[in-house]
Amino acid sequence: MSALWHQTQSLHPAFKRFNDCLNDDWFLLPYELRLQAAHARALADAGILSSTDADAIACALNEIKRAHITSPSSAAGAPAPSGLAEPTGAPAPPGLGDCPASDAEDLHTWLEAELTQRVGDAGKRIHTARSRNDQVATLLAMYLIDSADQLGNRLTHLVRTCAARAKTWAEIIMPMQTHAQFAAPGSAGFWILRFGDAFNRWKRRAAWLHEDWQHDCPLGAGAVAGSSIPIDRQQQADGLGFDGPALNALNATSSRDNCLEWLSLLGHIGITMQSFAADVLAFCQTPFDWVDYPKAFGTGSSMMPNKHNPDAMELLRGEACALTAAHHQATTLMKGLTSGYQRDLQTIKPLVRNATETAFNLIALTTDFIAALEFKQDQLAACFNDGNLMATLAMENLVKQGTPLRSAHHQIAQHIADGETFNAITPDTLKQYATAGSPKPSITIAAADTLLKDLDDHQR
Amino acid sequence: MSALWHQTQSLHPAFKRFNDCLNDDWFLLPYELRLQAAHARALADAGILSSTDADAIACALNEIKRAHITSPSSAAGAPAPSGLAEPTGAPAPPGLGDCPASDAEDLHTWLEAELTQRVGDAGKRIHTARSRNDQVATLLAMYLIDSADQLGNRLTHLVRTCAARAKTWAEIIMPMQTHAQFAAPGSAGFWILRFGDAFNRWKRRAAWLHEDWQHDCPLGAGAVAGSSIPIDRQQQADGLGFDGPALNALNATSSRDNCLEWLSLLGHIGITMQSFAADVLAFCQTPFDWVDYPKAFGTGSSMMPNKHNPDAMELLRGEACALTAAHHQATTLMKGLTSGYQRDLQTIKPLVRNATETAFNLIALTTDFIAALEFKQDQLAACFNDGNLMATLAMENLVKQGTPLRSAHHQIAQHIADGETFNAITPDTLKQYATAGSPKPSITIAAADTLLKDLDDHQR
Amino acid sequence: MSALWHQTQSLHPAFKRFNDCLNDDWFLLPYELRLQAAHARALADAGILSSTDADAIACALNEIKRAHITSPSSAAGAPAPSGLAEPTGAPAPPGLGDCPASDAEDLHTWLEAELTQRVGDAGKRIHTARSRNDQVATLLAMYLIDSADQLGNRLTHLVRTCAARAKTWAEIIMPMQTHAQFAAPGSAGFWILRFGDAFNRWKRRAAWLHEDWQHDCPLGAGAVAGSSIPIDRQQQADGLGFDGPALNALNATSSRDNCLEWLSLLGHIGITMQSFAADVLAFCQTPFDWVDYPKAFGTGSSMMPNKHNPDAMELLRGEACALTAAHHQATTLMKGLTSGYQRDLQTIKPLVRNATETAFNLIALTTDFIAALEFKQDQLAACFNDGNLMATLAMENLVKQGTPLRSAHHQIAQHIADGETFNAITPDTLKQYATAGSPKPSITIAAADTLLKDLDDHQR
Amino acid sequence: MSALWHQTQSLHPAFKRFNDCLNDDWFLLPYELRLQAAHARALADAGILSSTDADAIACALNEIKRAHITSPSSAAGAPAPSGLAEPTGAPAPPGLGDCPASDAEDLHTWLEAELTQRVGDAGKRIHTARSRNDQVATLLAMYLIDSADQLGNRLTHLVRTCAARAKTWAEIIMPMQTHAQFAAPGSAGFWILRFGDAFNRWKRRAAWLHEDWQHDCPLGAGAVAGSSIPIDRQQQADGLGFDGPALNALNATSSRDNCLEWLSLLGHIGITMQSFAADVLAFCQTPFDWVDYPKAFGTGSSMMPNKHNPDAMELLRGEACALTAAHHQATTLMKGLTSGYQRDLQTIKPLVRNATETAFNLIALTTDFIAALEFKQDQLAACFNDGNLMATLAMENLVKQGTPLRSAHHQIAQHIADGETFNAITPDTLKQYATAGSPKPSITIAAADTLLKDLDDHQR
Repeated sequence: MSALWHQTQSLHPAFKRFNDCLNDDWFLLPYELRLQAAHARALADAGILSSTDADAIACALNEIKRAHITSPSSAAGAPAPSGLAEPTGAPAPPGLGDCPASDAEDLHTWLEAELTQRVGDAGKRIHTARSRNDQVATLLAMYLIDSADQLGNRLTHLVRTCAARAKTWAEIIMPMQTHAQFAAPGSAGFWILRFGDAFNRWKRRAAWLHEDWQHDCPLGAGAVAGSSIPIDRQQQADGLGFDGPALNALNATSSRDNCLEWLSLLGHIGITMQSFAADVLAFCQTPFDWVDYPKAFGTGSSMMPNKHNPDAMELLRGEACALTAAHHQATTLMKGLTSGYQRDLQTIKPLVRNATETAFNLIALTTDFIAALEFKQDQLAACFNDGNLMATLAMENLVKQGTPLRSAHHQIAQHIADGETFNAITPDTLKQYATAGSPKPSITIAAADTLLKDLDDHQR
Repeated sequence: MSALWHQTQSLHPAFKRFNDCLNDDWFLLPYELRLQAAHARALADAGILSSTDADAIACALNEIKRAHITSPSSAAGAPAPSGLAEPTGAPAPPGLGDCPASDAEDLHTWLEAELTQRVGDAGKRIHTARSRNDQVATLLAMYLIDSADQLGNRLTHLVRTCAARAKTWAEIIMPMQTHAQFAAPGSAGFWILRFGDAFNRWKRRAAWLHEDWQHDCPLGAGAVAGSSIPIDRQQQADGLGFDGPALNALNATSSRDNCLEWLSLLGHIGITMQSFAADVLAFCQTPFDWVDYPKAFGTGSSMMPNKHNPDAMELLRGEACALTAAHHQATTLMKGLTSGYQRDLQTIKPLVRNATETAFNLIALTTDFIAALEFKQDQLAACFNDGNLMATLAMENLVKQGTPLRSAHHQIAQHIADGETFNAITPDTLKQYATAGSPKPSITIAAADTLLKDLDDHQR
Repeated sequence: MSALWHQTQSLHPAFKRFNDCLNDDWFLLPYELRLQAAHARALADAGILSSTDADAIACALNEIKRAHITSPSSAAGAPAPSGLAEPTGAPAPPGLGDCPASDAEDLHTWLEAELTQRVGDAGKRIHTARSRNDQVATLLAMYLIDSADQLGNRLTHLVRTCAARAKTWAEIIMPMQTHAQFAAPGSAGFWILRFGDAFNRWKRRAAWLHEDWQHDCPLGAGAVAGSSIPIDRQQQADGLGFDGPALNALNATSSRDNCLEWLSLLGHIGITMQSFAADVLAFCQTPFDWVDYPKAFGTGSSMMPNKHNPDAMELLRGEACALTAAHHQATTLMKGLTSGYQRDLQTIKPLVRNATETAFNLIALTTDFIAALEFKQDQLAACFNDGNLMATLAMENLVKQGTPLRSAHHQIAQHIADGETFNAITPDTLKQYATAGSPKPSITIAAADTLLKDLDDHQR
Repeated sequence: MSALWHQTQSLHPAFKRFNDCLNDDWFLLPYELRLQAAHARALADAGILSSTDADAIACALNEIKRAHITSPSSAAGAPAPSGLAEPTGAPAPPGLGDCPASDAEDLHTWLEAELTQRVGDAGKRIHTARSRNDQVATLLAMYLIDSADQLGNRLTHLVRTCAARAKTWAEIIMPMQTHAQFAAPGSAGFWILRFGDAFNRWKRRAAWLHEDWQHDCPLGAGAVAGSSIPIDRQQQADGLGFDGPALNALNATSSRDNCLEWLSLLGHIGITMQSFAADVLAFCQTPFDWVDYPKAFGTGSSMMPNKHNPDAMELLRGEACALTAAHHQATTLMKGLTSGYQRDLQTIKPLVRNATETAFNLIALTTDFIAALEFKQDQLAACFNDGNLMATLAMENLVKQGTPLRSAHHQIAQHIADGETFNAITPDTLKQYATAGSPKPSITIAAADTLLKDLDDHQR
């Protein structure tokens, strides 16, 4: 069986190339198996399947699972988060076998054929009260819910890594920059905490979406308008871990809003990672040379024997563009579509899957890189000879003595114009800061602890 | 005073054209006034301002407010939601006067000059322990928090309108389509409920963001690293309605993550509105003619006397592209920027403001259009002669009698291939549906009530 | 050999996953072989390679070619255009074998290892006076020049198909629409000619780019600043079919402007194809039913036995979004990069290759679909009962008799408001048109011939 | 008169806000006046207008022109290019007066009312054999043709400025970078020539488009299908400077392909300007300090008295994002539209106009900045102590003596690993380069002259 519909003519090859999508669908197999099982139970309860048939189907689904998913624990189809103790860039194998050769046009067709081959007529009953339209919407929802969970775990690990480094580096004095120019003293710990804070925001968003997406189960919405078969959609939803059925079958089958939200979140995480990469790349520039760049994350030049290049950070900055581009593609795809499933939506599946994989791999790269990064404190200390980095603190001393800020600002600016410098730092420089969120070492350490506590409090 | 820094040379006109942004900043005046007041109080408590000076500043801020904001109740700078009883597309005037002519390079400079002119030296002290970097981040946060609140109200109104129409239209039978072809019977109420459900999701997101953005107040983060002036950032945060100060001054001044999230949400709302517009435009096509298109939302042709065109829906579909484009521009802008404020960020202010205004105006247009829309029931009834819309229900009748779905599907497909038709509908057709979320009128009405109850439960 | 640089440490797996790109590079092998041959000749002339070594290298390159490229005629690596006589969607196989398993980090490394294994020390000399930076820029230029040539051929075939159909369909009367509503009479031939004209523009652009890109050969630009080895870059350029060497080594290695132009052109072609798809999908809607949709380009529904869906056109509309998204990704990638090769650029290679393949496949789909498309003339004739399609011609008759246009417009509009209809068409209706570019059959046929003549005149 | 159609009801305010576009159209007035004059002549020749009426209309158009366009020489509506002798950022005023207050819904309506008020019935005849659909397509084509001409002039000026600087700076030795790290010696002249070469490509594209867009005049295409009035479209095309009428009325009114091409070109120019800005910003970083940043292009900090910031380059990098975003918005807008004018297209007019103005202003900023830029040669010389910038030249010396490149590469890399440095430069260092396109001063100067000659040869 190559199609679930009444096929009377073979497909034109120029069309078939785009139509067939078993390969693109394959990552959804773990979810499809769970969906089929839940649907079979609901059909049995509705009297469409006999209990013998329902048992046979459950048994066949297990057989298929064993044949194609090697490790039952990784049914999620998306990689497990790196452990805290042993950070690693390589996601654990999902245990999903290779996509079989088949002329089935998609995963649903392939699976119904597999079932029917094993259980006969019962297999021909399984597609009752549903359509591929609600099926694929449900599979995507299940995949996204799982992926949001994993994203939360991965970001938790990344934020923890940032917080740990922030505490270790809280006293490594480092010029802070605005407009890519030296501005005021800070610390390496203060710097990395910026990313801990930013990634923690995205971690909260992953948790939000994970929870919200569970509200509505599309299964049972059918092609567009549900069904006259009195199947219990609440039971189906329960079986698949949703709160309840989607409110409106048309919206359930037409919308890819969860995909848009997911891709937009991945894109935003990408922007934070790109900013991290840009910072490290700036620190690596020849005249900076602040960073003891981990050699396992770089390469050399085929022509210039003097070069060691920070490729990992450049690839991070470059590959993350795929995340915003995926969101762009999905929004363009959805633009102007009328309600009711249309085949344009097929392309969103590989888009979501590839972006998820890229994002998870880039997060692993970022996490492992931060764990391996070290600073050259001598280089950092040396660079305080430039930039009048102490000027603002000097100005604030005048203010503390009663000079209006605007006058103190002009005075110091005039001193600098006259050639005076404000570069002298001491180990206590950072302790002069007084406000919350500043690079005073004790404040940075406390802020890192706040982040860690927040992670503990919001652990599911 | 045209600048807050030590200016020794006039700006090149090719640069000045981009540098000066008082006009672009002006919409933030209501927030700037609140910020200045909170900051003055904190400076007084920190001993930087005398209480006399602090009082003088508070008084001067009130004067400036009276001079430039005509209606105190609309200080938010963003339009108030249309009332339920009298839906209207026109947002209430924000009460903000025109931007004054001035050579001040931005709003902050203009305001410090205004203050200093009124209160002398005290004005020169107001910029202590802060920078324009934390100021603009705080103003944007305040604007977004307010706008998210208003967006929630506007979407609530839109969802209510959809739900009300869904109940009214629950028995107006209408072909549902997939692949833009007739598929199965549904109702106009079932159709509009799709949008009620979709917009309700976005309403939840507006509520999320409204709450989450209040966590972190950037004010006091200074240029990049806080300050050595022991100002109480918690007190500032309290005064401006935030939970507390931002955890890290570098992140607070570098990030525009809240802008990205906001623009992405507006873009997603735009996609839902575009789908609504596309549906209505399809219904208006000459051979459909399902819709009694409200004349106040259309125009005619300058050449063809026979045309009345559904321009409002085309403009809705077209203008909403500005929302995804704004998100695109903001993500491109942020791509690859190193940490620490950079002037590139200036362009995000008008981007956010224009997108917000466009989104609010398009939501008003959508809401008012739905309130004015009616269907031509005769045209709808007539079109059931085509498309074999009853085929799925006929197939499900076979299934109920024991035929396996796949066999029943082939049987009906064969009947159709043989020339049989499945078009006969009756007033009771919709009642044959049995599943949750289907177009059975009682189910549609209950679903609309569920939506309305959800809005009531989640009202702030 | 897994790297062309002095490697002292193995790469971190989280980085290696992104670093290794032999697979992504593989499509460039045919160009790499030509480049190596030209470079070897230039090195021999510069006295860096002995003539024996140069001969050995030429021989080894031929060996490698035979081992990995099965059909010498398809060295271009991109599919040949469908022939006119037998249009087919399937691009001819490029003859490129599968990418070999190897630990080489990229194509250049793999090939130098293959060469060195065959010719010893001579292989170690081949990378003189060049870097991978100029190599990859040259390979991309060669690939794009070839692809532009092929695109021209493919678009020529598509325009010819449109022109042929325009002549065949010049008298099939069909309502023309504005605002997706019936507007005035036209013909199916007039309609398809719109696309012939539009695709012909893109064909001119392909020809422009094909010519312009040949001006500058990057090879010899080295890593960033050329070389002190007096290699003859003009000779290299000649050998590879370029006019001469690139003017500036820094620009030659930093720029991906040709990729941006290419992706933008593919995106624009995609938009024209999407408009074509949208038109066909509109014609297929149930109440239109104008099209005898070729069954080999559609599928059915798994749930609804009454459905036959125009999937090919929906997939065309959906997949073409990948083209604008690829351009978006490339522009975002390039945004803000400083001059001098950076590793971010690696990601542009698969981006360009995938977009090219997708575009070529979509053009084949469009061409083959147009060749298979037929109209239902009965349905078309029947639909002239609606829409007052003759109103404009009636108004113009009044104008011809002296009534001012604006008055005639109001008169006819008033007649319609009073219930009069303007629907009567005759076989001669289209002959009433008088202006160039209108749907008068003789004008349409002449315009199609103009297009065909233009293609003949601009054939390379 | 507020509309050109039979209006029976006032527009809903939520719709009217988007519908009325006189303000957005106003920049097209100079073109509209020319179009009207050409159309009146053609109507007179076709016998629709008497010669008296045609004269009266010509006279009235002149009156309107004098009333609203102050300087006849600047009818183009787009700013004139900065002169070579006195580069300036400020575009010359277009001489277009402010948009008048009017209730006309668009420019065409306003003008027909103005005409009719002046010439009575003749004004009511002017809209014969055309529609606003072909009018707006023609106006946009005229605007784009003019703008492409101006763009060519502006880019010519920019390329000349780059070439002049390249010659002046050909001996200012400067580290060239790859991966944002020191790589090999080059010169400031070599660096700026990269941009001369890149902008010269875009200048060629402007010339291409300027020529190609003149082929097809949309005027006379009517609403969608031309007209039965035998107007001479070739004569109209001649009168407006086009080669001939558009081949197909449907394509002429549906397509905005020229807008897409224009926006894509502006976006690509923006990417080159962003790369220029990124380079300058890198050179300005505190530890680089290579640049004598012109103070008229920067600002200071409100908090940090030590800062002078390179804002102009940051704003250039930031504002240029509006150009790619405009292209993105236009492609999204066009995505999936069916043929035949639809009102979505209205939004493309301000999009094109704003992007053009932004691009022209950014090009002026770039040009004037380059003219004002100087380097700190002491800082540049000092930085050659780092980075082993001479390593590649040392390696090539070994190659010249017979060592295979790969072995020489490993030898030098080993020396560096052992602590040897390769930093010694002399005034003759750059003279060691031998290949075309390298930073040898004589080569750079000759290349700059080649650019200048190319500009002279391709001057229109």
